[in-house]
Amino acid sequence: MTKKNAPTMKDVAREAGVALGTVSKVINGIPVSEEYRSRVLDAIRTLHYEVNTYARGLKTQKTNLIALIIPNTINPFFASFADYIEGALYQRGLKLLLCCADGIPEKEIAYLNLATQNKVDGIVALTYSDVGKYIAKDIPMVVFDRFFDNHIIPRVASDNFAGGCMAVEKLLELGCTHPVYIRFHSVFPGESDKRMDGYLHACKKHGLEPDYLNMEDCPEMLDYMRDFLERHKRADGSLTFDGVFAHTDYHGYHFLRLLRGQGYRVPEDVQIIGFDGIRQFGGEQEDLFVSSICQPVKQLAEKCVEILVAPDRSMVPSLTLLPVSYQYGGTTKREG
Amino acid sequence: MTKKNAPTMKDVAREAGVALGTVSKVINGIPVSEEYRSRVLDAIRTLHYEVNTYARGLKTQKTNLIALIIPNTINPFFASFADYIEGALYQRGLKLLLCCADGIPEKEIAYLNLATQNKVDGIVALTYSDVGKYIAKDIPMVVFDRFFDNHIIPRVASDNFAGGCMAVEKLLELGCTHPVYIRFHSVFPGESDKRMDGYLHACKKHGLEPDYLNMEDCPEMLDYMRDFLERHKRADGSLTFDGVFAHTDYHGYHFLRLLRGQGYRVPEDVQIIGFDGIRQFGGEQEDLFVSSICQPVKQLAEKCVEILVAPDRSMVPSLTLLPVSYQYGGTTKREG
Repeated sequence: MTKKNAPTMKDVAREAGVALGTVSKVINGIPVSEEYRSRVLDAIRTLHYEVNTYARGLKTQKTNLIALIIPNTINPFFASFADYIEGALYQRGLKLLLCCADGIPEKEIAYLNLATQNKVDGIVALTYSDVGKYIAKDIPMVVFDRFFDNHIIPRVASDNFAGGCMAVEKLLELGCTHPVYIRFHSVFPGESDKRMDGYLHACKKHGLEPDYLNMEDCPEMLDYMRDFLERHKRADGSLTFDGVFAHTDYHGYHFLRLLRGQGYRVPEDVQIIGFDGIRQFGGEQEDLFVSSICQPVKQLAEKCVEILVAPDRSMVPSLTLLPVSYQYGGTTKREG
Repeated sequence: MTKKNAPTMKDVAREAGVALGTVSKVINGIPVSEEYRSRVLDAIRTLHYEVNTYARGLKTQKTNLIALIIPNTINPFFASFADYIEGALYQRGLKLLLCCADGIPEKEIAYLNLATQNKVDGIVALTYSDVGKYIAKDIPMVVFDRFFDNHIIPRVASDNFAGGCMAVEKLLELGCTHPVYIRFHSVFPGESDKRMDGYLHACKKHGLEPDYLNMEDCPEMLDYMRDFLERHKRADGSLTFDGVFAHTDYHGYHFLRLLRGQGYRVPEDVQIIGFDGIRQFGGEQEDLFVSSICQPVKQLAEKCVEILVAPDRSMVPSLTLLPVSYQYGGTTKREG
């Protein structure tokens, strides 16, 4: 079949006995009824219809591709964020270009440049680069969880400050009198730094002396935790703290293992609350690794996409924080 | 600046004082030295150079996009598979279009159709659809872990048969005399079905009576496991088996919790070996959930991409199986 005789979308609609818009939906991956979908697909096969993507690109200057720049999909939080972003894009007929940029700055920049080159229509970024330098003003972009100098780019995050307060107040409510904070501090500033502010705020409010371990991203995490534990042992081996707010579930889980490994009982002697809401094997029905201040990952992903595709970007909030919630995960006492 | 005066790639090379090929590499995200990269990026910014993607697409008919069709990125195995596929593509100047098709057959088909529509250059699929029906012969494609009628499509998987044998023989080596198999059986045939063949083969070889739980994909998994456990209790409460080969780490972990919840000691009373090699929080340095027959996820991903981009597809093996390996994860006795 020569290009001259190539069937058009109209031919497909006629063959399938459906409206042109229905053919367009099926081609663009927008859900239609099962019957219509299968009629369109049959017609496409019968006619050997092929969409000329490039011709269409020249006409509309749209690729319907959105780049997601994320450190990796191995960390369970990033992995489910990517999954939900993909789902939210699909519902709008958009497709996801995945960039796992962990430790490769030029990779982040290469993907940021895609937007300028018209290879993607927009970008969702959880990135360590200062994206403001690389991105033109008129390119749709949303940043998750990070701070940047370029304040034109809308940002979405969990309410980390409220989460920090919530962790302390939940520990107090469950009977703790001396909650400490195992803090992790990335070299890249981000919304998660506000967990510290929330912890300090709650301590002040309740007349508690702040007491925390301040770790940077380092391979010696377990050594720092061990030192911290040693410094909080009384002569009889009992601990001077009875509650732990851990910067993430990951840190909470490692501190839990350290405590249990030394014979301390969790949650009887020490209660632990992490942050993120990571579930074992990722399943929604599965257990948390530790009791946690859970981020609403699905809603965060949907909010990012909603803002990205907003028709009027001048009205988009520069910062959107979604609420977090406490969930029991075995390392705190039962309520009530 | 009008299109007429738009700078070309040659202008960028001249401005940056580098070869044309270097500019091309930077634009296509192929790593070059830091100094060259930054000179090219500076020149791009100075000249306001923009790649005309569509014009290029019409010329070469290449998009440099590869679609990955995968159930989701929430399951940790799929999540790290996606991450490694992305990395292997990036090294070749290719980009990943992510399709999480869990339970949405029309989504799989929509992505399979992308190749026919020239919107992607190839497909890596871990899919439940019979892709043979939807894919033209000349489209580069690799299938991971599944069986299909269309034998033209090359397949990559772990050596699941050897893994099934290995699990039984490792349990015997560690002192078990009666290993059972907790089998999970998807309605979609795949390479993982061969774990069962491996289990049966090893039983026969060692003169053992096969004894297994055969579960389909169902919400009553824990009920089936509980029933199986009840059926294997002697009058005094002791168990008639002392080793468990679990279809995946996920199943092994749930059986572990069931056993421990009823007071059985693992690995003292019962040893458990799962399959997959899932690590907590995904980190390579982290612990396994259970002792496991580990799939070489990174190598599997790289093999898929290597086959996908092979210049001569007629010489590509129709099936490539990579070796698995046993790793200790706390639910078996220590060796030696």
